[in-house]
Amino acid sequence: MNIEDATKQLEQMRQEAYAYTDKGKVASYIPELAKEDPCQIGVSVCLPDGTILSAGETDKPFTLQSISKIFSLIVALCQNGQSYVFERVGKEPTGDPFNSIIKLETIKPHRPLNPMINAGAIAVAGMIRGKDVEERLHSVLELLRKMTGNPQIGINEAVYCSEKKTADRNRALAWFLKDSGVLTGDVEETLDLYFRHCSIEVTAKEVARLGMVLAADGMDIMTKERVFPAEVARICKTFMVTCGMYNASGEFAIDVGIPAKSGVAGGILATVPNKMGIGVFGPALDEKGNSVAGVKLLELLSKEWKLGIF
Amino acid sequence: MNIEDATKQLEQMRQEAYAYTDKGKVASYIPELAKEDPCQIGVSVCLPDGTILSAGETDKPFTLQSISKIFSLIVALCQNGQSYVFERVGKEPTGDPFNSIIKLETIKPHRPLNPMINAGAIAVAGMIRGKDVEERLHSVLELLRKMTGNPQIGINEAVYCSEKKTADRNRALAWFLKDSGVLTGDVEETLDLYFRHCSIEVTAKEVARLGMVLAADGMDIMTKERVFPAEVARICKTFMVTCGMYNASGEFAIDVGIPAKSGVAGGILATVPNKMGIGVFGPALDEKGNSVAGVKLLELLSKEWKLGIF
Amino acid sequence: MNIEDATKQLEQMRQEAYAYTDKGKVASYIPELAKEDPCQIGVSVCLPDGTILSAGETDKPFTLQSISKIFSLIVALCQNGQSYVFERVGKEPTGDPFNSIIKLETIKPHRPLNPMINAGAIAVAGMIRGKDVEERLHSVLELLRKMTGNPQIGINEAVYCSEKKTADRNRALAWFLKDSGVLTGDVEETLDLYFRHCSIEVTAKEVARLGMVLAADGMDIMTKERVFPAEVARICKTFMVTCGMYNASGEFAIDVGIPAKSGVAGGILATVPNKMGIGVFGPALDEKGNSVAGVKLLELLSKEWKLGIF
Amino acid sequence: MNIEDATKQLEQMRQEAYAYTDKGKVASYIPELAKEDPCQIGVSVCLPDGTILSAGETDKPFTLQSISKIFSLIVALCQNGQSYVFERVGKEPTGDPFNSIIKLETIKPHRPLNPMINAGAIAVAGMIRGKDVEERLHSVLELLRKMTGNPQIGINEAVYCSEKKTADRNRALAWFLKDSGVLTGDVEETLDLYFRHCSIEVTAKEVARLGMVLAADGMDIMTKERVFPAEVARICKTFMVTCGMYNASGEFAIDVGIPAKSGVAGGILATVPNKMGIGVFGPALDEKGNSVAGVKLLELLSKEWKLGIF
Repeated sequence: MNIEDATKQLEQMRQEAYAYTDKGKVASYIPELAKEDPCQIGVSVCLPDGTILSAGETDKPFTLQSISKIFSLIVALCQNGQSYVFERVGKEPTGDPFNSIIKLETIKPHRPLNPMINAGAIAVAGMIRGKDVEERLHSVLELLRKMTGNPQIGINEAVYCSEKKTADRNRALAWFLKDSGVLTGDVEETLDLYFRHCSIEVTAKEVARLGMVLAADGMDIMTKERVFPAEVARICKTFMVTCGMYNASGEFAIDVGIPAKSGVAGGILATVPNKMGIGVFGPALDEKGNSVAGVKLLELLSKEWKLGIF
Repeated sequence: MNIEDATKQLEQMRQEAYAYTDKGKVASYIPELAKEDPCQIGVSVCLPDGTILSAGETDKPFTLQSISKIFSLIVALCQNGQSYVFERVGKEPTGDPFNSIIKLETIKPHRPLNPMINAGAIAVAGMIRGKDVEERLHSVLELLRKMTGNPQIGINEAVYCSEKKTADRNRALAWFLKDSGVLTGDVEETLDLYFRHCSIEVTAKEVARLGMVLAADGMDIMTKERVFPAEVARICKTFMVTCGMYNASGEFAIDVGIPAKSGVAGGILATVPNKMGIGVFGPALDEKGNSVAGVKLLELLSKEWKLGIF
Repeated sequence: MNIEDATKQLEQMRQEAYAYTDKGKVASYIPELAKEDPCQIGVSVCLPDGTILSAGETDKPFTLQSISKIFSLIVALCQNGQSYVFERVGKEPTGDPFNSIIKLETIKPHRPLNPMINAGAIAVAGMIRGKDVEERLHSVLELLRKMTGNPQIGINEAVYCSEKKTADRNRALAWFLKDSGVLTGDVEETLDLYFRHCSIEVTAKEVARLGMVLAADGMDIMTKERVFPAEVARICKTFMVTCGMYNASGEFAIDVGIPAKSGVAGGILATVPNKMGIGVFGPALDEKGNSVAGVKLLELLSKEWKLGIF
Repeated sequence: MNIEDATKQLEQMRQEAYAYTDKGKVASYIPELAKEDPCQIGVSVCLPDGTILSAGETDKPFTLQSISKIFSLIVALCQNGQSYVFERVGKEPTGDPFNSIIKLETIKPHRPLNPMINAGAIAVAGMIRGKDVEERLHSVLELLRKMTGNPQIGINEAVYCSEKKTADRNRALAWFLKDSGVLTGDVEETLDLYFRHCSIEVTAKEVARLGMVLAADGMDIMTKERVFPAEVARICKTFMVTCGMYNASGEFAIDVGIPAKSGVAGGILATVPNKMGIGVFGPALDEKGNSVAGVKLLELLSKEWKLGIF
């Protein structure tokens, strides 16, 4: 398939998905996100040679939110190794909403079931090493800068502040983890790191490239240098299938079949092993927190281009 | 029954209950409480004329812990009225451990089920008014000083500090309440107030007198002045029956049948309407957090003296 | 207070409560109950000498439904003793809806928390002895006939059949209990007994007399013969306070303060120790399953006549 | 890799896995399964041309148990279509044990979260059409006979009877589903069908061939005839990844990375898209219900032969 035809198809699918933007709502619990225009939908596809095809809003910056959970996990795994990480956070999907606290109490030992729910990602943030929060954040930013080739990647301060002010449920999760011994460091500092990496700003184009590096098992597609071990990429892609789309992951696996991770700012990072990375931006969310039009678009794309891994 | 005979009986029952002190353990999650000698058991009974009968360790100071939930509720009800308080905290027993967070998430609106569990008592602490934590605490201390006639009643600083350091589960509860809008003020300040009123130090003799004021529907038994409205006393006594002994309240109601509130330092406050107040101290706890020997002693006392309200 | 004045007051309170009949709905999950006219409210009060005061629909027969849980418990306790019964069913309120199955799985051992929720009452039905379901039911009927002095008390066959056909949630509870070893006999036979004792038909007048026998600690008020031990009466009254009004028991204890048990046909049995029994009929239910106007009427009655036990 | 070398490797891995047989226990809640010798472990691999490599106990018949959930789902999907099936059963992993009933009550509508847990598989059994249980079972048997090429495949009557007698928790699940409207037909008949398809007897060799048909997207590898649509195969393989190994599915996906379904008789069906089917038999189970040595063997196999799909 040539680039021109593919881009035309992307645009057609984008238009079809656009009709779904009015079926969702922008995230309201973080006031800064509530200002976003819900009627946007964009998609970028990054190919193994670095070519990027795009349709719609793909230069508009948005915050990673839960998509950042993949990258904090990569840093934590690289710094601590699998056994350290998975003694403190499990590998199982939960069936519960992303901010649920129930299983922290019911499951013994009191450990988050996986690193893609908030409790698990806060636990992972607690494992990222550094002398202070700036240094710890720097590890995550450096990873993203390398993967995207954009040394400017940084934080949206307004979203970060908004998030920090309204994240009391996350504080409850963090203190529960502290009580259970999963978090050992300073709670507010770990939360601060968590809020910051959630507020990292990217575009759909950049997300597509992030997805391509995962698709290439951690290899920088331009420099051909390894950014992180293939084993770590494999773990991330597996989590993206079993827990990447909140408690709609099982449905997404069946209907779309591509490893993916969504965020409440409307982004979705998808990765087709060895073939492509996909970045989607569509801020209108369904009730589980996934981009309505974004999920639709990926479904169309997966069917049209036969991208499903199952 | 004359005082001498009654005291003799108290001592006999105390001895019988003493055998149960080795069936429990002192609270371990607050390090300062873990230092207590488990082999203690004392009981005081305060009669309507102020006479106090005692047996065993009844001059040994201990901290109120959860017993203080009764008095913070009294202050909150007096300052805010019933409808304000019960819009923010329910009236139902839970069947769950005192520090459980599950129902905060499952029940909608996300409101603590009652003021005798930790979540509910933290919510109540949040309703106590004052320009700072000292002034807010002062309201609770003043109530206790009036009720006991002891102007020296204060806080055990070592326990307070120990508690504050190890209370991460309570922090989780408080932040969940903040997220749900039940707590509106500063969370750490409210927790600080909660830890302080839990650390108020009393003796079994004083607890007996507290119980007698409740038994007299809020009337100071010596001065015959009203300390708080009879309606408030009635509400407290009802909560003591339905939720006073953690998730063993139902069993205690059947086996003992006296309104009572326990604390993890080993104290139990019991109140026999119009007849007497009872203060018990026995730091060895069962797995639900109630004084093992203390519960036994109250069971003997209730049967021997026919104190059950049912 | 003379009988005439009291009856007048009853009628006034009944009228005030009548306004609440349109705030609820008749039970719909048992089709036969759904036919009832929601705009009814009646109340009878039975005094220690057997005098009955009434206002409103007090001769209209209705089925006991959950009120029968009190009487199956009395039979089970008399036949098996406390320790046998309470090894199989607990004494704690649950905070959950009456037909909830969750705690059967989460609490270990897997035992119903109390005999006033469906799971607990089915467990109790399993303890009632007899060579077949007729003989087992006969024990319950005989108890009710003795207590009311009405040898005609029997079952409403239409309600029984309706209930049996639609009781699949109760079947789920029963099979879970069978799996846990709490139920040991034939499951369908035990369910049949449970549906039958729920379908026993009474009037508010008769319920008032049932309440008076409980108020008299198990003594037949007319013949002065003991129908069941005082200890059993005490246990029932305690359960009525902690768990009698489904998961609104705590609220009812505070707002009304009288031991009571409700049923989804709209009946409420209340008992004021040593003073009176009260029978209420008002088929419009709130969302927890209690008679809306009935609860209101008892609240008025408790305040007006100072009947609260706290 | 030639067949001889591959078989030698299989045997080496089998021996390594054998050491794990004493780390588990045979299923005890079905008495007939409890008789099995735990020290067995066998593995067969079926290649696209039908060649089967084996090591260990691969001719020993065992019952499918939960592995049959895959095949009842195939029949239900073929008979009813996706939309009918997925209106009645979800697509999400649960994080709970396979026989848990909690989410049936907490999630609304009250629908099983996926067809791989007991509640979901009972719901699926209810969708299999036929004039009686024999005809309904016949559809499942026919599918298995076609897929394995063995017209003798049938039921182990002793296991079926044992299962039927001890399956009270499954009865609880079924009646809950009936109450929720998910099951509409006769409950005992549906349970009977469920017990029967769980008791279908196969060998590891046959399971390997079942896996190869799934790997070939529903194509009979010998006759090249389509047995069921590729879309149905894809759905099954996806469920095998997200929910196939009970509440250890997430861990298995990361550690092994092959779509698989386990059963409590010790079998595991695994399928490597386009490459091979794998059948494992090892009756010693871990506490979640998966074959201990079987999981180990698949992990070794996946690493050695690079079979992971992620």
